[in-house]
Amino acid sequence: MAFANELELLGFDVFGTVVDWRSGVGRAVAPFLARYGIDLDPLVFADRWRARYQPSMQPIRTGERPWVRLPVLNRESLVALLAELGAEDVPDAELDDLNRAWERLDPWPDAVEGLTRLKRRYPIATISNGDIGGMMRLARFGGLPWDAILGAEVARSYKPTRETYLRSAEAAGVAPGALGMVAAHSADLAAARSFGLRTIFVHRPDEKGPDTGDRAEPGEWDIVARDLNEVANLLGC
Amino acid sequence: MAFANELELLGFDVFGTVVDWRSGVGRAVAPFLARYGIDLDPLVFADRWRARYQPSMQPIRTGERPWVRLPVLNRESLVALLAELGAEDVPDAELDDLNRAWERLDPWPDAVEGLTRLKRRYPIATISNGDIGGMMRLARFGGLPWDAILGAEVARSYKPTRETYLRSAEAAGVAPGALGMVAAHSADLAAARSFGLRTIFVHRPDEKGPDTGDRAEPGEWDIVARDLNEVANLLGC
Repeated sequence: MAFANELELLGFDVFGTVVDWRSGVGRAVAPFLARYGIDLDPLVFADRWRARYQPSMQPIRTGERPWVRLPVLNRESLVALLAELGAEDVPDAELDDLNRAWERLDPWPDAVEGLTRLKRRYPIATISNGDIGGMMRLARFGGLPWDAILGAEVARSYKPTRETYLRSAEAAGVAPGALGMVAAHSADLAAARSFGLRTIFVHRPDEKGPDTGDRAEPGEWDIVARDLNEVANLLGC
Repeated sequence: MAFANELELLGFDVFGTVVDWRSGVGRAVAPFLARYGIDLDPLVFADRWRARYQPSMQPIRTGERPWVRLPVLNRESLVALLAELGAEDVPDAELDDLNRAWERLDPWPDAVEGLTRLKRRYPIATISNGDIGGMMRLARFGGLPWDAILGAEVARSYKPTRETYLRSAEAAGVAPGALGMVAAHSADLAAARSFGLRTIFVHRPDEKGPDTGDRAEPGEWDIVARDLNEVANLLGC
């Protein structure tokens, strides 16, 4: 890749791109659903929790609500979902424990090897909407070798706002054009590109269930790859 | 140690505690001093640059000056020091390169092993006045296996302010009492203790030259240790 020498940092979306949130959240909530007699496929519970994710950040993106860390939003979404399902008296400690499901998600099978290879040549950092503590514990859970945790909490904003990308670049001390954004989501990359970042698409076909992931044509982004090992191959790592 | 089970995060001072800034800065500036005919011991140059470090942060701590990242302050201090030495026409690119000396400092001999051992049991993070990008590149230079970079840039404040410690704890999602601050500097630990953190003193006798480092009596802090391997021993890592 011609621009490989110009990159000084790779920034990664995490939920969906690096880790498999659906199966991890499903695994964490299954015993809870059984105990409370909630007759719902744990993966569907995960999908319905996740469906509240983007809307939960929207009032913060627009400035209508002051910035709060992602676990606060995830917990509010959980409480609302449980209310829909008729489970309104779940103790706080149990809610907190369920909420930590987002810190115990398995990496996609190529992720640790791919990141380890990429890290030989480039600093690698999260540019996720996750909070710093959650990203830290998720990395320890799955063995993700980040050099830094950037993104929402550093920027006090949520992707895809301009601030989230550009304050992450600034905190790392790199120009936007020297930052390659890696994501499985077209909207994330479209925003990153509009603010001057390089874009690296990774295909995660099963993110929300079989064959649900975003697709990309060759040439649609600076790099289009099947997985993180292919990104490492293409960047000469 | 009785409180080892209560700790959820170790936060580290970096310059002086984990890395040897004096010899690293001296090594970086030596060729520059020779080229410009400045007749000064490179280690003394390092000391004089570092002497401007605490005063440079003071107007930010008091709120007199808006927060800026540490490389901005270090570069201002460098320019002022060079002016004192009669070197006023150093090109920008050379100043930038000298300033990056703070990202290329050797860890103390026990640091990588000690951190690696501590990391098996605890998340380990920087709580330094360094910027995120600088801490990231310093970690890559020396192989420091941080789980997260906290401290000044996350808090937008400089130690020893209350905000720097407590916002770091908050970003990691841990209570102050579950955070152990590790430092070779008594003032850093005294502040950390006053805000409810646990305190771990590491003796670095040669930080500013032979036998210059802060000392501590046994019992003066929650842990008093010779080096990071002894901290690991005492915390059962």
